[in-house]
Amino acid sequence: MAPLQDMSPLAPHDIVRLEPGRVVLLDQRRLPDEAAELECRSAAEVAEAIRGMAIRGAPAIGIAAAYGIALAAERGDDPAEADRLLREARPTAVNLAWALDRMRENPSAQHARAIHAEEVDRCRRMAEHALELFAPGSRVLTHCNTGGLATGGVGTALGAIEAAWSHSLVAHVWVDETRPRLQGARLTAWELEQARIPFSVIADGAAGALMAAGEVDAVVVGADRIAANGDVANKIGTYSLAVLARRHSIRFSVVAPTSTIDVDAATGVAIPIEQRPPDEVTARFPARNPAFDVTPAELVGAIVTEHGVHRFPYSASLLLPMGARA
Amino acid sequence: MAPLQDMSPLAPHDIVRLEPGRVVLLDQRRLPDEAAELECRSAAEVAEAIRGMAIRGAPAIGIAAAYGIALAAERGDDPAEADRLLREARPTAVNLAWALDRMRENPSAQHARAIHAEEVDRCRRMAEHALELFAPGSRVLTHCNTGGLATGGVGTALGAIEAAWSHSLVAHVWVDETRPRLQGARLTAWELEQARIPFSVIADGAAGALMAAGEVDAVVVGADRIAANGDVANKIGTYSLAVLARRHSIRFSVVAPTSTIDVDAATGVAIPIEQRPPDEVTARFPARNPAFDVTPAELVGAIVTEHGVHRFPYSASLLLPMGARA
Repeated sequence: MAPLQDMSPLAPHDIVRLEPGRVVLLDQRRLPDEAAELECRSAAEVAEAIRGMAIRGAPAIGIAAAYGIALAAERGDDPAEADRLLREARPTAVNLAWALDRMRENPSAQHARAIHAEEVDRCRRMAEHALELFAPGSRVLTHCNTGGLATGGVGTALGAIEAAWSHSLVAHVWVDETRPRLQGARLTAWELEQARIPFSVIADGAAGALMAAGEVDAVVVGADRIAANGDVANKIGTYSLAVLARRHSIRFSVVAPTSTIDVDAATGVAIPIEQRPPDEVTARFPARNPAFDVTPAELVGAIVTEHGVHRFPYSASLLLPMGARA
Repeated sequence: MAPLQDMSPLAPHDIVRLEPGRVVLLDQRRLPDEAAELECRSAAEVAEAIRGMAIRGAPAIGIAAAYGIALAAERGDDPAEADRLLREARPTAVNLAWALDRMRENPSAQHARAIHAEEVDRCRRMAEHALELFAPGSRVLTHCNTGGLATGGVGTALGAIEAAWSHSLVAHVWVDETRPRLQGARLTAWELEQARIPFSVIADGAAGALMAAGEVDAVVVGADRIAANGDVANKIGTYSLAVLARRHSIRFSVVAPTSTIDVDAATGVAIPIEQRPPDEVTARFPARNPAFDVTPAELVGAIVTEHGVHRFPYSASLLLPMGARA
């Protein structure tokens, strides 16, 4: 992997692209300080970029993996080995496995670009469906980054928030900084600044106090994997928000494409939770660093997919529109 | 204020002391990287050290303020001005006002040292009373720093945890890193390492997932101010822990000396919440940075003072032993 030149301004579709002999992606670890690209010349290098979180966000890593397979096919590398490397890069987001399963049918560049285009279209449709979640003037709290950087399209939760803002439904966005990797303070803040939407970053621990003070009208987050019953695995800290939202009768909604739904996971118990290096939390002392948590379906007020707004209980409504795909 | 030489190892009572013409304190902003002292030659410099969090922790800033008054008296400075500067240094912890009220009676060095000695004694008594909160082998989660660094004695919540550990009642300590100032990851971790107690630092957002996984048996925290009804103001993020603990039927306890109780605040609504500079959260984007939150008394399973273990409802039991003092 080699860094490329700085690039700016940034269009959402620029977060990852396939070129002859290489996959080029925006190195999100260096945002917001600089918008620099990273070049991957093999599936192994794409896998390393995913593991190291140069690219992150459930839909985005699925797209990157699809390009990684297309790159391996172009190079004539062993397809099984490329699949294995990419599949093991991160365990929790099911989009990764989903995209790799689809690339097995047809490992071409054209197919990978079609998967990317589908995610872009799903984002647009989710944002439209999600409008009904927002009362006018909502002060919305979100966690991690779920915008263009995470999806290749307009985003999942953040795409919905931006669409709602353009319809005057959102007054302010509270951005959890999202420790330990600070995707909120670095990436979501950067995207909201570019979109000129008013926001404030908060320490993750401040969300409860803001809710108690009546300053939060809605909580909207993305998902890395959704079980068949609607249990939602998402960035660590999401579950705390869901519990706090329930205590304050604040609507807690998830916006995620059907590529995030794992029909083979009956409940959240079946979802593997990635443990990341302790030194992401502190380099000086022992640490425990789970990257995700699971929010039980009963705390989730709505799940918005590209097919529409689903409500608890989710088992039937969530899986029904997926019949055509399965 | 001038930095002094590095000092190590550190005895708990070394966090702040009065010497002829100066107050010397351990600069906690530089821990755990270095144990350096800071010299304050006036009450104004002590107030600045408190505001800048070179010394922090509710009992500790009360002690520092008492020494600041004694220093002003020695110098012949205006006592009303010294009182005002110190009283306004930080608004939430009531120990500051409490210590200053006591110093009005007698602004001598001897009196300030007596206040310090009383806090040391209170810590010891709290730790003994708190033993009944811990079942053998407890995995205890704590927030912020409430050890020797915060109190001048053995600590409040952390003093209780260390005492319980020495009685084989604690198996492991989960340390919230406590954003934005990282008092957990910097100070509590450092104190636990010195005490050779097994611990892991976690991102604040991970507490809920650990509770859901059954890995937390008790939550024990300190307090910056306790209202007459038992509502507890403490470091931002405490309220979220209390809500999560209630959901998981985990005991949530507060350990704090009576100098933390504000008999004039009927409920938590009367407690002023300090808003700190946004750049403590992020220097790059807009931020909201409340330093404390209020946990309603009904979520607090026990409040341990030097007089014993109090339980909800707190109004009568909490204030009764204070009659002698009031």
